[in-house]
Amino acid sequence: MRTDRMDDTLIDVPRGLTNVVAAETSLGDVRGHEGFYHYRQYSAIDLAAERTFEEAWHLLLFGRLPDADELGAFRGRVARAREIPESVRALLPSIAAITGGTDALAGVRIALGAVAAADRIRPLFDESLDERLTDAVRVSAVTPVLLASLHSLAAGREPLRPRDDLGHVANYLYLLTGAAPDEHRERAISAYMTAAIDHGFNASTFTARVIASTGADLASAVVGALGSLSGPLHGGAPSRALDTIDAIGTADRIDAWVSDAVRSGGRIMGFGHPVYRTEDPRSRLLRSIALEFGGDRVEFAVAVERRVLELLAELKPGRELHTNVEFYAAVLMELCGVPREMFTPTFAAARVVGWSAHILEQAADGKIVRPSSRYIGPEAPQPLPHRQAASAAQR
Amino acid sequence: MRTDRMDDTLIDVPRGLTNVVAAETSLGDVRGHEGFYHYRQYSAIDLAAERTFEEAWHLLLFGRLPDADELGAFRGRVARAREIPESVRALLPSIAAITGGTDALAGVRIALGAVAAADRIRPLFDESLDERLTDAVRVSAVTPVLLASLHSLAAGREPLRPRDDLGHVANYLYLLTGAAPDEHRERAISAYMTAAIDHGFNASTFTARVIASTGADLASAVVGALGSLSGPLHGGAPSRALDTIDAIGTADRIDAWVSDAVRSGGRIMGFGHPVYRTEDPRSRLLRSIALEFGGDRVEFAVAVERRVLELLAELKPGRELHTNVEFYAAVLMELCGVPREMFTPTFAAARVVGWSAHILEQAADGKIVRPSSRYIGPEAPQPLPHRQAASAAQR
Repeated sequence: MRTDRMDDTLIDVPRGLTNVVAAETSLGDVRGHEGFYHYRQYSAIDLAAERTFEEAWHLLLFGRLPDADELGAFRGRVARAREIPESVRALLPSIAAITGGTDALAGVRIALGAVAAADRIRPLFDESLDERLTDAVRVSAVTPVLLASLHSLAAGREPLRPRDDLGHVANYLYLLTGAAPDEHRERAISAYMTAAIDHGFNASTFTARVIASTGADLASAVVGALGSLSGPLHGGAPSRALDTIDAIGTADRIDAWVSDAVRSGGRIMGFGHPVYRTEDPRSRLLRSIALEFGGDRVEFAVAVERRVLELLAELKPGRELHTNVEFYAAVLMELCGVPREMFTPTFAAARVVGWSAHILEQAADGKIVRPSSRYIGPEAPQPLPHRQAASAAQR
Repeated sequence: MRTDRMDDTLIDVPRGLTNVVAAETSLGDVRGHEGFYHYRQYSAIDLAAERTFEEAWHLLLFGRLPDADELGAFRGRVARAREIPESVRALLPSIAAITGGTDALAGVRIALGAVAAADRIRPLFDESLDERLTDAVRVSAVTPVLLASLHSLAAGREPLRPRDDLGHVANYLYLLTGAAPDEHRERAISAYMTAAIDHGFNASTFTARVIASTGADLASAVVGALGSLSGPLHGGAPSRALDTIDAIGTADRIDAWVSDAVRSGGRIMGFGHPVYRTEDPRSRLLRSIALEFGGDRVEFAVAVERRVLELLAELKPGRELHTNVEFYAAVLMELCGVPREMFTPTFAAARVVGWSAHILEQAADGKIVRPSSRYIGPEAPQPLPHRQAASAAQR
């Protein structure tokens, strides 16, 4: 018997639920004033710089870093969960054709629903904790494979099959580029993807938790989050930062381009973040990795960053604007052979791990997320008007 | 340049955001104490009893009831938006096979993403109001057709093609049952579906609005809402009420069955609602329509309802429990030939109109819905532990 009480007293909060505590979490936090964020008790940047993607994944899912044995077992578990079901593999060419080949994220929303159906993934509230963990690993492991496969098909290539001997990130790069990455490139993308697993209560993470709170299946919650991620306001589109670098083109054009952009009120992609008042800590890490690669492209990116920040300090005094994660993420992905249209999908391939951890935490809470609305329309009820006769044309 | 400010002061609210105003809306409201809900300024029950589904749809989408000419034009627009794109029609047999034939809602989440991709439905924030309205009509019009087609395929039948000469509800029943409904059955299901278009801020409607707030495309927001709807806590599964009626079986078993259910603490499906303290107004409407049909099944349902309410008053004194919408919705759908596994999909076929209206309202607001979380885990940062050597088994 449901016992929820209806209390008519509505609680007004800032529009968009800004700063409203929608959940308690042990998964991590973003401390914007300090330029710091963490996964459980560890700095996310330390994890990204010093540990593998699978170690951070294990930490978020199971609450602790794996020891060497656990890591070996977890890598095996992840590798086994990569295989696309045969019935879904047969669908992928049609999905790639329908989604037009330019948007692997639109395709993966369709394909992931199909994997969930083929796997008979069940509602979270019908599952044991072990079954939920299996779903979380499955959905997170197969998502990058689906993305890379859809990308290959759109480019007219037969998708490669996942390689069990490669780690999660190396396998993804292998599927995407056709070659296993060297150690340097694997570390670079691993650092980016590890740093991208989670980042507080963005709209997609919140979407995943709202859907999970109903007890729906884990894949449905991830598909919803992927929908939110596709929205222009969500952010997380590093290709735009590269577009900025390209639009500027050469060092002598930086000043004119930035002045124009600021004067016309446009946003300079790759700069500014709604949470950090300091430099984005992800930006600092990714810049240092990019500098290890070196080369003209990196040097130009560094020059653009330096001059944009100088100009913004002049043109917008008092506003602390910094490079955000998109800027060097874009530079790094380009260096590592990730095609530009796969930048946001690569972000999603990492973030799905964070969504899944949030989904499990929300499912353990067990309370549905169901806010209220305030009606601001004309007073009701008003009597229904009499029906008008149809005009001659319509009778 | 984004200018959002980060303010560290978190706002604590009840768990699950209960009673928190997450949006202002002109679409309607539920007044639980009064047993009343409305679409814009009109009683939803009056609309369900006296107007067609398309009239309520037009009201929610455009803000006013259509005159006769507008209604004719809108019916035509809806009929044209029913056609499944050829590329998606070709996929439906595979989708029906993968989803196993028992869950048209799992199938429609996949198929709707494909329709959106085939139609090149764009992000809401890239569209004009007219384009958004076109998407809203398209997604709402095609959803029942996808559901009925997936159901046919699962039953081994070739899906029928939509009929332009039929109204929205009659066409859906035609596709589902293979025959155009008589006027009585069309009116009955139209009343149910009209009453089911919207009902305040349930979790699925909120999901749709959160996704829409990012500027994502309308179909993504609907797919997310469908995910929430699939959760056991969401409610809206009228087939469970019919299962109750069947489990009781005969009039002489009502007392024993209900006493057992109450003693064992189980919920009696079809009774109780988290919002209404009075009778669910939808229940009253649907009962009166069911009584027009008459017959043994309706009489038994009425007897079950009467006796359950008497027993609950005895066994749970002080608790006002009433029949909810599921009970007579189930009875009516059975009378009208809707298969039991299509009860919840039929609810979704109606609710998609409400979701779409909420999505357009949220898109017009333009502010992303992004709450915060409170971190309650161990203090961070703690230094990363040293890596342990792998055991012999793993080396």
